[in-house]
Amino acid sequence: MLVVHVHVRVRPGQVEDFLAATAVNARASLTEAGVLRFDVIQDQADPEHVVLTEVYRDDDAAAAHKQTPHYAAWRDAVAGMMAEPRASARFSAVFPAGGEGWSSGRP
Amino acid sequence: MLVVHVHVRVRPGQVEDFLAATAVNARASLTEAGVLRFDVIQDQADPEHVVLTEVYRDDDAAAAHKQTPHYAAWRDAVAGMMAEPRASARFSAVFPAGGEGWSSGRP
Repeated sequence: MLVVHVHVRVRPGQVEDFLAATAVNARASLTEAGVLRFDVIQDQADPEHVVLTEVYRDDDAAAAHKQTPHYAAWRDAVAGMMAEPRASARFSAVFPAGGEGWSSGRP
Repeated sequence: MLVVHVHVRVRPGQVEDFLAATAVNARASLTEAGVLRFDVIQDQADPEHVVLTEVYRDDDAAAAHKQTPHYAAWRDAVAGMMAEPRASARFSAVFPAGGEGWSSGRP
């Protein structure tokens, strides 16, 4: 289980477009076999700060995600909307301990 | 829907105890009606950095969580294990848009 948080600082005035493009990518990502969750959340204190919280079955699934057409389309679509390079952090799951409690996020 | 990320810096040598106490709290928190998820994740690049990712049905559910005996027990148990005050950020859910995709995390 691999949890990835991707922090994005969106350019002022582009938040709505960024969120729309990112939701398209999130929905498509949930069809990947190795993606358990792909959430998009927006900082209430700083709406230009958006976080993608991605849960993969394993490291290979995270690598496979980067090879998909929807990832490439998203990457290109949002390239000009970000105020700075996005930053990501990788986490291990402590709780829930098994895969069971992580298998959702599919709307 | 309210997503809260709580960032904790754990004192060196106390990570195992902190994670054990936090898993107890997480499991109990999932029995609250207003708690949809309560995950505990550990930074792969910095294992003393632990994040609780909590998803509440609404602001009231987040407030209710702070009134539970398991929250109080956790707060007291970990008080001496943290290297600095914990920091939290509150997020709105963008995707999934409805409550549906968020209802899990129960092991």
